[in-house]
Amino acid sequence: MSIILGPNQYGKAENRVVRIYRDSSRHEVRDVNVSTSLRGDFNAAYTHNDLHGVLPTDTQKNTCYAYAKEKGIGEIEDYALALARHFVSDLPAVTSARVIVDEYAWERLGEHTFIRSGQEVRTAQVTVEDDRQWVVSGLKDLVVMKSGGAQFQGFLRDDYTTIQETPDRVMATSLVVRWRYASAHLDWGKAYTDIRSILLARFGEVQGLALQQTLWEMGKAVLQARPEVAEVMLSAPNRHHFAVDLSPFGLDNPNEVLRCEDRPYAVIECNVTRDDAPDAGPAWQTVPGLS
Amino acid sequence: MSIILGPNQYGKAENRVVRIYRDSSRHEVRDVNVSTSLRGDFNAAYTHNDLHGVLPTDTQKNTCYAYAKEKGIGEIEDYALALARHFVSDLPAVTSARVIVDEYAWERLGEHTFIRSGQEVRTAQVTVEDDRQWVVSGLKDLVVMKSGGAQFQGFLRDDYTTIQETPDRVMATSLVVRWRYASAHLDWGKAYTDIRSILLARFGEVQGLALQQTLWEMGKAVLQARPEVAEVMLSAPNRHHFAVDLSPFGLDNPNEVLRCEDRPYAVIECNVTRDDAPDAGPAWQTVPGLS
Amino acid sequence: MSIILGPNQYGKAENRVVRIYRDSSRHEVRDVNVSTSLRGDFNAAYTHNDLHGVLPTDTQKNTCYAYAKEKGIGEIEDYALALARHFVSDLPAVTSARVIVDEYAWERLGEHTFIRSGQEVRTAQVTVEDDRQWVVSGLKDLVVMKSGGAQFQGFLRDDYTTIQETPDRVMATSLVVRWRYASAHLDWGKAYTDIRSILLARFGEVQGLALQQTLWEMGKAVLQARPEVAEVMLSAPNRHHFAVDLSPFGLDNPNEVLRCEDRPYAVIECNVTRDDAPDAGPAWQTVPGLS
Amino acid sequence: MSIILGPNQYGKAENRVVRIYRDSSRHEVRDVNVSTSLRGDFNAAYTHNDLHGVLPTDTQKNTCYAYAKEKGIGEIEDYALALARHFVSDLPAVTSARVIVDEYAWERLGEHTFIRSGQEVRTAQVTVEDDRQWVVSGLKDLVVMKSGGAQFQGFLRDDYTTIQETPDRVMATSLVVRWRYASAHLDWGKAYTDIRSILLARFGEVQGLALQQTLWEMGKAVLQARPEVAEVMLSAPNRHHFAVDLSPFGLDNPNEVLRCEDRPYAVIECNVTRDDAPDAGPAWQTVPGLS
Repeated sequence: MSIILGPNQYGKAENRVVRIYRDSSRHEVRDVNVSTSLRGDFNAAYTHNDLHGVLPTDTQKNTCYAYAKEKGIGEIEDYALALARHFVSDLPAVTSARVIVDEYAWERLGEHTFIRSGQEVRTAQVTVEDDRQWVVSGLKDLVVMKSGGAQFQGFLRDDYTTIQETPDRVMATSLVVRWRYASAHLDWGKAYTDIRSILLARFGEVQGLALQQTLWEMGKAVLQARPEVAEVMLSAPNRHHFAVDLSPFGLDNPNEVLRCEDRPYAVIECNVTRDDAPDAGPAWQTVPGLS
Repeated sequence: MSIILGPNQYGKAENRVVRIYRDSSRHEVRDVNVSTSLRGDFNAAYTHNDLHGVLPTDTQKNTCYAYAKEKGIGEIEDYALALARHFVSDLPAVTSARVIVDEYAWERLGEHTFIRSGQEVRTAQVTVEDDRQWVVSGLKDLVVMKSGGAQFQGFLRDDYTTIQETPDRVMATSLVVRWRYASAHLDWGKAYTDIRSILLARFGEVQGLALQQTLWEMGKAVLQARPEVAEVMLSAPNRHHFAVDLSPFGLDNPNEVLRCEDRPYAVIECNVTRDDAPDAGPAWQTVPGLS
Repeated sequence: MSIILGPNQYGKAENRVVRIYRDSSRHEVRDVNVSTSLRGDFNAAYTHNDLHGVLPTDTQKNTCYAYAKEKGIGEIEDYALALARHFVSDLPAVTSARVIVDEYAWERLGEHTFIRSGQEVRTAQVTVEDDRQWVVSGLKDLVVMKSGGAQFQGFLRDDYTTIQETPDRVMATSLVVRWRYASAHLDWGKAYTDIRSILLARFGEVQGLALQQTLWEMGKAVLQARPEVAEVMLSAPNRHHFAVDLSPFGLDNPNEVLRCEDRPYAVIECNVTRDDAPDAGPAWQTVPGLS
Repeated sequence: MSIILGPNQYGKAENRVVRIYRDSSRHEVRDVNVSTSLRGDFNAAYTHNDLHGVLPTDTQKNTCYAYAKEKGIGEIEDYALALARHFVSDLPAVTSARVIVDEYAWERLGEHTFIRSGQEVRTAQVTVEDDRQWVVSGLKDLVVMKSGGAQFQGFLRDDYTTIQETPDRVMATSLVVRWRYASAHLDWGKAYTDIRSILLARFGEVQGLALQQTLWEMGKAVLQARPEVAEVMLSAPNRHHFAVDLSPFGLDNPNEVLRCEDRPYAVIECNVTRDDAPDAGPAWQTVPGLS
């Protein structure tokens, strides 16, 4: 038996990069949070205290900022691809690079005045390995609610079940949706806008017995409308809204007054894909057991 | 010398109350976070272990929920006033009640489908004492940016000053603004919308040497437009955006690529008022040294 | 009627300063979070766009770091007093300075290896005005629990009361305690350690009907033991632990299995003082309505 | 081509369970945060709106509380195994269950008085599939610092590299370490205590050129000392401490005054294992792309 180094990666997380386009008096703002992560032959750094192949994470940070000027920040997918491609192409030890970008939206108030809009975050996770590349786009912190038209019925009961069936409940969730593209060349902005619209429209239409069906229908609608999407991952952490018992005060409460709870919360997570989807390769890969 | 009980208060913080109006198929949502706080003659509870005058905080919570049904949640100022008035009128020991309400906005997607909109929070802080009442309304977490047109020049320098004067910087802040009304009977919703518009418009227009002048002009504009506002408190914690030095990479950077920093942050706070404003009474009062 | 500038202040919040003493191979660490805030004659900055008296907040930050070297960081009270005194003495426009320091504790693992200990934070808030000074020391995030021996009985009931009286409940709170010294020259470290011990001992001993009596007894014990303390402010946001109803599963639950809830939470706050305490002056003062 | 359901799971996250042992006047406290997650044949719920095999997440919550009484909470690994085994054995549709437990430590102040100790969290992640089981134990939020004896030298430089080599820097990190046991029957508490000691001791001893070697040596030491550990995952998000340039103020600063920064932060992550380690099976498995 001998002790060996297993999977490993390193990088710089949460580089807060703001790019202002000031070419005319009407400025444009791109506001992103960028994390880089490199894999490759870094064993010597661990086992022989030899850093000659290790590019400092400080340099990765510098590159994020320099690229915001050199390449600009248009669509976050392109910016992430440029960064990841650079790390793989220009650094001998690197075999794989992952770049994750979160984008915060600003709404225009004036020529060079803006207001942060929404809590929702647009996301991109790009992986470059050798000469291949994978793009996963998405959104998170999209909080939606059905104030009616949601049910919870027909589920399994066991000895620990106390919850009652209900034909009408208030349901809210903070959606995380990510989709893997089969292509690496797209109008990313248009695709994002379209997919977001499809997701919201379907969320509004579906009236399932539980969130499972809603997620399935949302994912399916994206795949039906966008052939370039290979799979959709949906995660729905609930924000439970419970009807408050007002009967001690002589008041009826048909789901009109609710208590929103922080913890615990249900989480429903699923993948919706195609039976002939191209292999995901390392697109979703993490160091097992780590982030 | 003897040891005595000084100022004291107690209450229930952060009651998360959601009120759905389902009278037609087109639902309405009110989503609030309510904190109550009572003052009065509670000395016996502290010094003689006698709770006969102490209404449990659990009951205060119940009352927040029950009132959401009995009185409804229209404008948060009215809901807060009803709660605070109840505590003062109906509980012998209570001489003063403070109710604070934060309201989260939802945007309509469909008849009974909604999406959380914005990070911005509408606030109300109401104080009822005897037969008088004070209403402070406001907003918080309103993040705004000037991507140009902001300066920082002509300031004092001492031995510890290293910052350079600049005719052009990017400036962002997460505004907290609260205003005290001279009246307790208003169209609160309309007043809120108008004042928010005035604040944002003025923020966009003013080009001062520092944030101080901007805040002053914002507060002044509110007072000029709305005679029923007695004073305006503005707090501007900066979200510093620093131009990144790209010269090591042979790149020029005229405020195009910026690093957004978390800490430390400047905070500028001021009150703008009228020389004949009615006394604030307990409107802003806190237990000194406590929250 | 004319519009005027009311109270105002500005400063740099949350300067994260770490001071390592490396004079021998056995290092010492001081880890603090420092916020500065200045008041004085800054009207011209607001109303006439004239910054000549305004020392940049960036300079205040520099001064926090420079003083960590020049004066060192021994007891946080002394460090805060030195900074506040400097701002008042050396800057013409400043009439009052407030410096707040939070200190994080590290436990020694080796000569120059440390581990962060505890969640608890030691605090100091110092105010210097003209040639006078006020010192408020304290602690926060001290989470304590009574797993038994706590009651809740004999309280007021009204139409909205549903909570039951109980002779035995689990009680937990995240204590914030701050005390104002009558003196500005003390062995701050020893005083802190002693007062913390008194608070914890008294918390353990008192078995009141509610938290009010416990807080009163804790504050009283500090005042009895330490003549140099003029007043004690105690704030106890509860961490509610509710016994779970296990009867549907045929299980008894005499406060053995509890659900810890995030929100809402009760907050009990009080001041315990002496009838001949010297005036607090600006020691607790805030800009009313702001932080 | 057809659209299909891919991997999916559901459960209840962050059940806050507190278990008090009150059998004698000397109470014991167990304070945990429990998350459950089930996989199996739930396709009908997604694609046919048929919930007959779906046990509500509310029931999973109930089971966490009921088991805290029925089975008790001794070592968190045993509690998690009991819960996961129950879900797999007693629910027809479930083929795999994952239970994650975080444990918060309390220090004794008296017979039934306690104080929360430390920020550090003990963790367990248990997976049961058919008749097999996997146990991953660990710790997180363990913040450690080397105030000297850390270097950063000999690394790769490219066009974007500006950082200087240094023979002496202050290094701090918030460690996450998780280790997979080859056995499911152990004295978990003793193993945890021993492994934590080994990790801290090794952290203190190793003086590598970068964190990579330190992590490797820490993992290796655990594997050398504990044959029942199959692999160790280490994640080290840095808490950067940068020496402040005090030269503008005529002050030297040999790593005595440092600025602790929030973002960005380096993250170094690695796995240290044995060449003959038993297969990890689903021990680390996640829904790819989701949490």
